[in-house]
Amino acid sequence: MEAKEVEETRIESDLIGTREIPASALYGVQTLRGIENFPISKFHLNEYPLFINGLAITKMAAAMANHELELLTKEQKEAIVTACQEILDGKHHEQFPIDMIQGGAGTTTNMNANEVIANRALEIMGHQRGEYQYCSPNDHVNCAQSTNDAYPTAIHIGMYYSHLRFLPHLQALIDAFHQKGKEFAHIIKMGRTQLEDAVPMTLGQTFNGFASILEDEIRHLNEAAEDFLTVNMGATAIGTGICAEPGYAEKCVAALGKITQLPFRLSKDLVGATSDTSCLVGYASALKRVAVKLNKICNDLRLLASGPRCGLGEFNLPAMQPGSSIMPGKVNPVIPEVMNQICYKVIGNELCVTMSGEAAQMELNAMEPVMAQCCFESVDLMINGLDTLRTRCVEGITANAEHCKTYVHNSIGIVTALNPVIGYKNSTKIAKEALETGKSVYDLVLEHDILSKEELDTILSPENMLHPVKLDIHPKK
Amino acid sequence: MEAKEVEETRIESDLIGTREIPASALYGVQTLRGIENFPISKFHLNEYPLFINGLAITKMAAAMANHELELLTKEQKEAIVTACQEILDGKHHEQFPIDMIQGGAGTTTNMNANEVIANRALEIMGHQRGEYQYCSPNDHVNCAQSTNDAYPTAIHIGMYYSHLRFLPHLQALIDAFHQKGKEFAHIIKMGRTQLEDAVPMTLGQTFNGFASILEDEIRHLNEAAEDFLTVNMGATAIGTGICAEPGYAEKCVAALGKITQLPFRLSKDLVGATSDTSCLVGYASALKRVAVKLNKICNDLRLLASGPRCGLGEFNLPAMQPGSSIMPGKVNPVIPEVMNQICYKVIGNELCVTMSGEAAQMELNAMEPVMAQCCFESVDLMINGLDTLRTRCVEGITANAEHCKTYVHNSIGIVTALNPVIGYKNSTKIAKEALETGKSVYDLVLEHDILSKEELDTILSPENMLHPVKLDIHPKK
Amino acid sequence: MEAKEVEETRIESDLIGTREIPASALYGVQTLRGIENFPISKFHLNEYPLFINGLAITKMAAAMANHELELLTKEQKEAIVTACQEILDGKHHEQFPIDMIQGGAGTTTNMNANEVIANRALEIMGHQRGEYQYCSPNDHVNCAQSTNDAYPTAIHIGMYYSHLRFLPHLQALIDAFHQKGKEFAHIIKMGRTQLEDAVPMTLGQTFNGFASILEDEIRHLNEAAEDFLTVNMGATAIGTGICAEPGYAEKCVAALGKITQLPFRLSKDLVGATSDTSCLVGYASALKRVAVKLNKICNDLRLLASGPRCGLGEFNLPAMQPGSSIMPGKVNPVIPEVMNQICYKVIGNELCVTMSGEAAQMELNAMEPVMAQCCFESVDLMINGLDTLRTRCVEGITANAEHCKTYVHNSIGIVTALNPVIGYKNSTKIAKEALETGKSVYDLVLEHDILSKEELDTILSPENMLHPVKLDIHPKK
Amino acid sequence: MEAKEVEETRIESDLIGTREIPASALYGVQTLRGIENFPISKFHLNEYPLFINGLAITKMAAAMANHELELLTKEQKEAIVTACQEILDGKHHEQFPIDMIQGGAGTTTNMNANEVIANRALEIMGHQRGEYQYCSPNDHVNCAQSTNDAYPTAIHIGMYYSHLRFLPHLQALIDAFHQKGKEFAHIIKMGRTQLEDAVPMTLGQTFNGFASILEDEIRHLNEAAEDFLTVNMGATAIGTGICAEPGYAEKCVAALGKITQLPFRLSKDLVGATSDTSCLVGYASALKRVAVKLNKICNDLRLLASGPRCGLGEFNLPAMQPGSSIMPGKVNPVIPEVMNQICYKVIGNELCVTMSGEAAQMELNAMEPVMAQCCFESVDLMINGLDTLRTRCVEGITANAEHCKTYVHNSIGIVTALNPVIGYKNSTKIAKEALETGKSVYDLVLEHDILSKEELDTILSPENMLHPVKLDIHPKK
Repeated sequence: MEAKEVEETRIESDLIGTREIPASALYGVQTLRGIENFPISKFHLNEYPLFINGLAITKMAAAMANHELELLTKEQKEAIVTACQEILDGKHHEQFPIDMIQGGAGTTTNMNANEVIANRALEIMGHQRGEYQYCSPNDHVNCAQSTNDAYPTAIHIGMYYSHLRFLPHLQALIDAFHQKGKEFAHIIKMGRTQLEDAVPMTLGQTFNGFASILEDEIRHLNEAAEDFLTVNMGATAIGTGICAEPGYAEKCVAALGKITQLPFRLSKDLVGATSDTSCLVGYASALKRVAVKLNKICNDLRLLASGPRCGLGEFNLPAMQPGSSIMPGKVNPVIPEVMNQICYKVIGNELCVTMSGEAAQMELNAMEPVMAQCCFESVDLMINGLDTLRTRCVEGITANAEHCKTYVHNSIGIVTALNPVIGYKNSTKIAKEALETGKSVYDLVLEHDILSKEELDTILSPENMLHPVKLDIHPKK
Repeated sequence: MEAKEVEETRIESDLIGTREIPASALYGVQTLRGIENFPISKFHLNEYPLFINGLAITKMAAAMANHELELLTKEQKEAIVTACQEILDGKHHEQFPIDMIQGGAGTTTNMNANEVIANRALEIMGHQRGEYQYCSPNDHVNCAQSTNDAYPTAIHIGMYYSHLRFLPHLQALIDAFHQKGKEFAHIIKMGRTQLEDAVPMTLGQTFNGFASILEDEIRHLNEAAEDFLTVNMGATAIGTGICAEPGYAEKCVAALGKITQLPFRLSKDLVGATSDTSCLVGYASALKRVAVKLNKICNDLRLLASGPRCGLGEFNLPAMQPGSSIMPGKVNPVIPEVMNQICYKVIGNELCVTMSGEAAQMELNAMEPVMAQCCFESVDLMINGLDTLRTRCVEGITANAEHCKTYVHNSIGIVTALNPVIGYKNSTKIAKEALETGKSVYDLVLEHDILSKEELDTILSPENMLHPVKLDIHPKK
Repeated sequence: MEAKEVEETRIESDLIGTREIPASALYGVQTLRGIENFPISKFHLNEYPLFINGLAITKMAAAMANHELELLTKEQKEAIVTACQEILDGKHHEQFPIDMIQGGAGTTTNMNANEVIANRALEIMGHQRGEYQYCSPNDHVNCAQSTNDAYPTAIHIGMYYSHLRFLPHLQALIDAFHQKGKEFAHIIKMGRTQLEDAVPMTLGQTFNGFASILEDEIRHLNEAAEDFLTVNMGATAIGTGICAEPGYAEKCVAALGKITQLPFRLSKDLVGATSDTSCLVGYASALKRVAVKLNKICNDLRLLASGPRCGLGEFNLPAMQPGSSIMPGKVNPVIPEVMNQICYKVIGNELCVTMSGEAAQMELNAMEPVMAQCCFESVDLMINGLDTLRTRCVEGITANAEHCKTYVHNSIGIVTALNPVIGYKNSTKIAKEALETGKSVYDLVLEHDILSKEELDTILSPENMLHPVKLDIHPKK
Repeated sequence: MEAKEVEETRIESDLIGTREIPASALYGVQTLRGIENFPISKFHLNEYPLFINGLAITKMAAAMANHELELLTKEQKEAIVTACQEILDGKHHEQFPIDMIQGGAGTTTNMNANEVIANRALEIMGHQRGEYQYCSPNDHVNCAQSTNDAYPTAIHIGMYYSHLRFLPHLQALIDAFHQKGKEFAHIIKMGRTQLEDAVPMTLGQTFNGFASILEDEIRHLNEAAEDFLTVNMGATAIGTGICAEPGYAEKCVAALGKITQLPFRLSKDLVGATSDTSCLVGYASALKRVAVKLNKICNDLRLLASGPRCGLGEFNLPAMQPGSSIMPGKVNPVIPEVMNQICYKVIGNELCVTMSGEAAQMELNAMEPVMAQCCFESVDLMINGLDTLRTRCVEGITANAEHCKTYVHNSIGIVTALNPVIGYKNSTKIAKEALETGKSVYDLVLEHDILSKEELDTILSPENMLHPVKLDIHPKK
């Protein structure tokens, strides 16, 4: 008979009762209960390193403040700080196995951090895991804290770092669009409004436009992320600061600033702030704005590259894979398509965040965990999408300059350039005749002897249609 | 000095106190409070005749049941029934001036109906308005009812009639698409997947496809509307039937059936039913499905008609107005565009209904008024949109058959038809060469001596590409 | 120096070029490209066994139909069927490593299945992996198919099985509510509308109400799932059936029925059906309806159990974990809270599905992958939530019968029961006086000598307030 | 036979053909077509004075710039400016009868303004309506403009003024909450997290919290509105400035600033800006944030005021109307309820704006009209709701101070205050015993002889539980 390996355990207890914890676990009884209570999703805390860092930074700052107030001994403080630093160095992340979507308003996450840090601190201090009399998850690591201030603060920190991580990926795409804008600066093409032929522009203007509208979003993202720098440390349970000493909140926020070199601030009304999760609603909405624009851009990329022979075909997206299991030679815009889908997912997540944000009741919002999950998920999806879109699509786009030019030459829309000279009503007549006869605007203007060939060439020269011009030309009649 | 006309009034009182009511008003003190309390939106009950009818039918049915139970005298019953019938005949609608969006879970609406009917019944009985001792809004018109059963029942009736009104407008559009399907049955055009050239089809198939996907929705709408035929009359305040007599609920529902000739049913669990507004969520979602499909269809109409010279240009939408204040001769797809916008509005309304539906608490959902408002609004918008889309766009569409055919002839996608004969891998080679050289698939197959001209003509004949075929052709190599 | 292990590879090629594939892989070059192109999310196909089964069933059915039409040899057919059966037996799932969120409208997923099945079939036939001349992913496994029919069909099958898997979990919760309904049938409690005291009911009615409203959803879910039984096999690329033989579609659908014993049907308009993903929109909306109701129920559970001393406290949820890192002894409704969050996530996913559903263009909807991802994710989340809610919360609920009764006895709302006897106006006066003086309704009625004590006891006896009654009692004045 | 009054008409023509226009109409043929083409909704331009003003300001600024460039005569300029000023003075608004929801990307709205202003200018100049040779809607009023710059600019102006109009209504509610915060500063009450008893606070803190979270939104609203000050005048049709002269854009924006005294700016990339409507998405999201918070606040108002005898009953909302048609004496929180519904509507509108915003294609977004409609509607609803909530609810709230205090005294949650002295583990034991025995925390601490009565009184004094304190107390054991 084979000996079944028996894992060694230690005993821990809480309000509910007593449980065996694997000896190898830095986490304790409350994390264990969290694992059992919430077998919900594919999203586990250990896959969100920036959030774990947020927890470590929060606990480190609290320990520093509590030590200043003589609520922790130097030894305790140093052990806690060292344990937190180890986490920041990427250690122990596997000790956070709980589901991101959890009841309890984040208590499981907060206690997971408290337990891991307490046990690691105990080891650092030369004690055994579980000897909480020397350093307890609740009394020492969580000293002067509640889940209700520590958890949102950790989310704020984690999300702010996520934001900082996100920006360069967005900027890289913007740069790639600008690069294409420069590359395609001299390719004349037809502009279209409401899908109908409008007036000429350059393909470079198209791509610079993409860059430009995304660039605006950086400001909005920064504005939204700014909210994360306001934290409610010191609020403790409901914002009144019960169990905290005077001065603690300020010291704790100062410590956050010292650790991160970021300008953290204290909420001006801790009661209001403690049930308020609207910074997550705001950031989710800011991501949604980006998604709305990326959707527009990807739709345009797909539409303008449509073809190869029965579409608009103004440029080509790089071929990434065979497009069809049945249609040989077909190539599809798979990369913009996957970005579109990410955008829809991000917009769906924003609704989840909105509805959860609306579910705050009295002194707390118990739905914050899923809000955090959605925000972290959306940033991750966006980063993956932005990089994929840039490297596997945008950077490899090539233009069909001749085809673009042909469109312009055949178009009726160029009649618009005649407006300032012959008026809207006369231009309308030319346009109508062109449409009905299939003739070109150019020929019709000459045929009707409205302008001389030289004048017409001046007005309809591409360089004169791409930006405001002053033309001193007057019609013959 | 001009004499200021002083309107005569009568005095009414309620829990809150005493108020003067214009003598001309059929409504009473509670309606007056509702007018004052809810100056909210552009949506007033008097613009929703089917909802007002729902109220009248509900009150009529209750009066009939209460008379059977001897809780109303014959005179009272007949006066109430006559007053309700007058409303059903289109009278007194101006007496419902309250906002559709109101607090109080519909009490204002229910009392508005109770008051108008009571006062009109009083007149019919030969009494004065306000002499409620003979026929009271609460004790007689509302006898054995609460807002919590009468209001949702009236909404159910109103929405069911809205549904019945909606269907023919949807069917008319379906028919118009089928008509175009028939008209364009012989126009060969290129099909496109993921915006890229795929394989040939007919333009008739496109329009029949539009008809077909909308046709499916009639079943879903009917399924969703079916819920409206289940009502909670007899639930009274919270579903327990307090203040109602045994048998009342059944008699009342039977009376509804008799009045409307519709198969109304009683909810099987009146407590559960009384706080449940999910039939509105369900119908809003059913409308959303229609909106999702109409959006797709309108997007296709706009895309396939794009041009006139730099777009796909497969067919023409009727020109309804000059398309631009600056671009002469421009014509835009303004009708599909307005339908798109209606669809977005309908989808937004569905979210409002969803969130409101989720806000039920314990024995009631206080948010039902805005749910009703959104559902009635969405049906109205849809009807207006469907008619506009049909009469001002779809019916006038004309095809560019030659242009459609040219696309097919130039396409590489027809290589797909060779798959069963020469295999996907060989077809891929042909396709690739066609793309790189600009040559036609037809020429390349002959050039490589893969098939005889006759065989190739057979395979690539349009009639053989538009439906499954068995071809006994084998490649030379 | 350590020798780096070199994995053996085979060479495969496609439209894009040539790649090395790990010899151990059953999948081929197109799957490899999919892995590289879509490093997007946490959702990989190999975690969705029912979807993989859907692919295997689809390919098996197609092989059976193609063999009947003599397009596959018996040997090929049997090898393909055996390979598919192995997958259905749970083998090879690790060979589906691609991201669920992908561009290409599912081509990567379809080709992943084609490649795995082809290579496994080759082995079964005694050939080497990659010897596609004997059994090719495109020409044989995908014979007479396109991604555009095979992929949605596989989703339909996978989702239908997900639906069948989902129902018993929902039913188990309904049963648990009914069980509590029975257990609490005799506990009188106060009903509340708009959060204000209304009239009495039993706690059993509350729980039966929960059961009842969920029960209704089974019908709606079944209606929505019914759509999955309609498939577009035989549509091939765009619905015209190109590359398929006459009779193939019907044979293929018949084979689906034979394999699954489910009544699959062919879409009546294959062109319309091929770009239409509204069955996913419909099912997502059906799940949303369930979410809306579960939210209401969980909100009620949390509210009615609030306390222990400063809340409503009508019943107790089982204590699952310490509720706070700072507040000793606190127990929170963590299980309903996590269910709420799941519901928000499901509603967010529904929006993603809606917007993606609206993005269909011409002959296809390229956004179907994220729609499938959301639907599968939502069902999984729901199942996890339903089980958690049932086993860790509902089944352990205990009532505070005395506390419930006290509320009723102290309430003013019982005055409602006097309406049929003394009229609404008189009852209002009693209620007002009760509110202002703090006296009980019971005492006030006696004090004013309106009814005898016996009459009052009859009217206000709980059994007479919980359902419709006929009382032959008349007021003294 | 009665003579039917024949209204006099004038004849106008456009691209589509010739039409009779009522002689009394300042608008012309294109407005007439818009009226006929878009019989859609209850929202007509003439009900949106700030939007009409936006149009007038835009046209006035363009006329000033065009005159500087000598494209309009002094007489034309002055007539146009005068006509615009009349509109700003509130005249001619009835001449804007078109539907806010319209196809054509706003061309109907822009032409409505062009026509009204042109005809009014003609009159001012001494000409007849319709004598467009002297002042044409297209060539003069719309000179150097397109719908695609004038329409969004007018929306920006209209929305910015709506924003300015909105803020004081929001501020007034904030002030009312602050007022109540002051009034209730000394009322001790129980705080609750996750609906469970937490620790004490004051009722003043509750109301200050409401004020505080709304106050934060003013900054976010301002940030969002800031975008409206960036306009794309000079972009003309697609951003290239065709038909405009160099310097026009800058002069036009300067004129906007001069007319409004607001710091309008020119978009830095006019091509990108012209299809971009994300300022509307952003403002709709900012309104949504406010809605999310107002929902939370209204939910709290309803919950904390619940009762009167079977709820939390911490304070009373003013009674606005009888709460029930069946339950005498019932008063419901009808005003917060209507605010909730407004919030859901605003959130639904935000989704409509989001989806419409995503529908931009190439050089324009044709869905802007419904986006504008939703934003204007949401602001109006919000203003109505905020005023109603403030004047009919918040200002009249009265507290039940005794009841609030009793909750605190009976609560177990106060055990939290002992944490810093006796530790979380010991406090947990006390809490558990209190819950199981029904005893008070106070008695139990004395019973177990943990602290002296004096010490306990110090720790549990309200003033020591409402903010951070330093207590130098140590347990006996």
